[in-house]
Amino acid sequence: MDEEIDSEFIVKLTDFLGFDKERVRHLIEKNYLARNWGRYEYLLRFDKEISHVERGTVLYEQDSSFEMITGFPKIRRAMILDPTVKKHFIGLEKVAVEEKMNGYNVRIAAVKNDILAITRSGYVCPYTTQKAKEKLNLKFFEDFPELVLYAEMVGPDNPYISKDIYNVESVEFYVFDVREKNSGKPFSISKKQEILEKYGFFQVKFFGEIPLETAPEEIVKIVRKLGEKEHEGVVIKDPEMILSPLKYTSSQSNCSDLRHAFKFYNEAGRDYMLSRIVREGFQTVEWNENEAEFEKRCMQLGKSILNPLRESIKKVKEGQRLYEEARIRVRDLKTVANFQVYLNRFGIDTVFEEPKVVGGEYLITIRKINKSTTDKTQAIWQGELW
Amino acid sequence: MDEEIDSEFIVKLTDFLGFDKERVRHLIEKNYLARNWGRYEYLLRFDKEISHVERGTVLYEQDSSFEMITGFPKIRRAMILDPTVKKHFIGLEKVAVEEKMNGYNVRIAAVKNDILAITRSGYVCPYTTQKAKEKLNLKFFEDFPELVLYAEMVGPDNPYISKDIYNVESVEFYVFDVREKNSGKPFSISKKQEILEKYGFFQVKFFGEIPLETAPEEIVKIVRKLGEKEHEGVVIKDPEMILSPLKYTSSQSNCSDLRHAFKFYNEAGRDYMLSRIVREGFQTVEWNENEAEFEKRCMQLGKSILNPLRESIKKVKEGQRLYEEARIRVRDLKTVANFQVYLNRFGIDTVFEEPKVVGGEYLITIRKINKSTTDKTQAIWQGELW
Repeated sequence: MDEEIDSEFIVKLTDFLGFDKERVRHLIEKNYLARNWGRYEYLLRFDKEISHVERGTVLYEQDSSFEMITGFPKIRRAMILDPTVKKHFIGLEKVAVEEKMNGYNVRIAAVKNDILAITRSGYVCPYTTQKAKEKLNLKFFEDFPELVLYAEMVGPDNPYISKDIYNVESVEFYVFDVREKNSGKPFSISKKQEILEKYGFFQVKFFGEIPLETAPEEIVKIVRKLGEKEHEGVVIKDPEMILSPLKYTSSQSNCSDLRHAFKFYNEAGRDYMLSRIVREGFQTVEWNENEAEFEKRCMQLGKSILNPLRESIKKVKEGQRLYEEARIRVRDLKTVANFQVYLNRFGIDTVFEEPKVVGGEYLITIRKINKSTTDKTQAIWQGELW
Repeated sequence: MDEEIDSEFIVKLTDFLGFDKERVRHLIEKNYLARNWGRYEYLLRFDKEISHVERGTVLYEQDSSFEMITGFPKIRRAMILDPTVKKHFIGLEKVAVEEKMNGYNVRIAAVKNDILAITRSGYVCPYTTQKAKEKLNLKFFEDFPELVLYAEMVGPDNPYISKDIYNVESVEFYVFDVREKNSGKPFSISKKQEILEKYGFFQVKFFGEIPLETAPEEIVKIVRKLGEKEHEGVVIKDPEMILSPLKYTSSQSNCSDLRHAFKFYNEAGRDYMLSRIVREGFQTVEWNENEAEFEKRCMQLGKSILNPLRESIKKVKEGQRLYEEARIRVRDLKTVANFQVYLNRFGIDTVFEEPKVVGGEYLITIRKINKSTTDKTQAIWQGELW
């Protein structure tokens, strides 16, 4: 990218970010501030958190300066609810509780007369962008070009995390935050709900505002019920959105993560696995479980780990290669081609199957190949050592 | 150490190791070749594997040159037995199968008119050294000053790994290898057994020589039986000790490792945990387990993880600090003092309780404090985030 940067560009960027020139040059050289490619080359993304600018924040030239869409703020986790919630939200009377959905995080915004779906890392996913254009009421972006929707794309045709549990036929966008460009300032819960309702957007489920004093016990009830439906958990928020939110998840969500991680045991992060296991330990103590409940939890944990491991090991023994199956649904096959190029760009090894016509659209099954776990397992079956 | 090294020393070391002078200087500067302290300062240890010299190898000046005691060769693991054993020992008719005991690895040798117990890392443990002197027939070292015993110290008074499963009252040394100084050349299995028997040493259990063709199935039977007694597993060896050995462990041993690891979840290595879990996956597939056996294995795995986690989390909730309890038994309290100094040298936080007199000896309980897991758990109970 170096060649294309003229001094004027650097000066403008320097002014906008409030960093000094050398720092900006350094960020660009190190690719910490990098360009997207192709038709989105104008979109710069922070590949790293830099002085309070979140990773995944994007910016682009606009009216002789820049415009910025801030990244997803990292939501920290409560390992236990009491006293964590009371301590974190100290001074508030009530906290707002929303469902944490298990989908794909995207920011949707009007950028240079276009609507873009920007991923957590600051890329523009062509499939998600197309879906957003089809599914959302775009009038919103005409009326409020300065606002950004922070949403989960959920449903079976989400190629990143496919879930059938939300009663969605293909995919839908459930909005959880509305924020201003540049400042990243969020709307309060009530203001957000009002504007989302007005434009007919789906919103993540709202469990109401709960007095801080009883919040831990109320949230346990909510999370238990969510868990029974295999839903993920909750995000606990300051109704005014001044204090940062917290998340807390169900045992079913931990076990579901573990099932996925152990299916591809050689790819998944060790810390990822451990943290989900440790959560189970805290939850059983915090929830004061009796021996029967504890045994059930042990069995669930054991199975969530060993079942996918066994299946993967067996499959490779029988000569199969391991893959994750994903699915997309499109109106126009051009979107498929764009999405394939996009995935390949990240070095993801995929096989796109032949499109099937379903109700005027195309359904395409995608296999994402898990080479590392396949190769490791195969080597062991062939007598190699660990 | 730099100051004390005169050129003559470096030249002699250079000659002995066959490395060039600059390299030896570099190893010493980086502490890859480091001295022990106190009365064992003369003993140099390799803190890192350097060009085929195993980590933990020690050397000392002797007769105007050096004498070397080679480290423990790393024994690689078979994740599955078939075809791994056949492939690794290809060309052999039979393999020798010995029990892999769960104890503390030490090398015992005559060094400068003294008998030393040298740990895996090349330190001289004062407690283990004292025990070796009391327990072993030292005539062996007079007759064969050029030989080294490679042994497991096992039993309840082993302060590193205390086990009651071997029918040992205090501690005993079970020898598994006899090797020559300098070359590290091992005795063949039969020659080793003969000499160990002659001097009345305990030896690790020998399951005989098994035809390579049937070894995998025979070893499964042996390991199953060992598992039932909570014993660890086997080491599979070339009877002539030319090809390197392999190890294979029981499910009970994996689960026991996991129980320990999850008790101190913030201290234990992520890779350590994962590898033991993955072994369970391979074993259930290789052993062709039915659903009932599989469910039992899931339950055992789940409990091995969650039970120690729960106990540690509970204990900290109740205000206790987490520790491991160890025990030593000595004739002379000087050994206790030396051992305490030795442990402190490694930064291990210990509390030594008052000695109890038992049968003319002193029993001392030692608490090794697990600060990291205690602090992490305490912070979470106080409402800190993960």
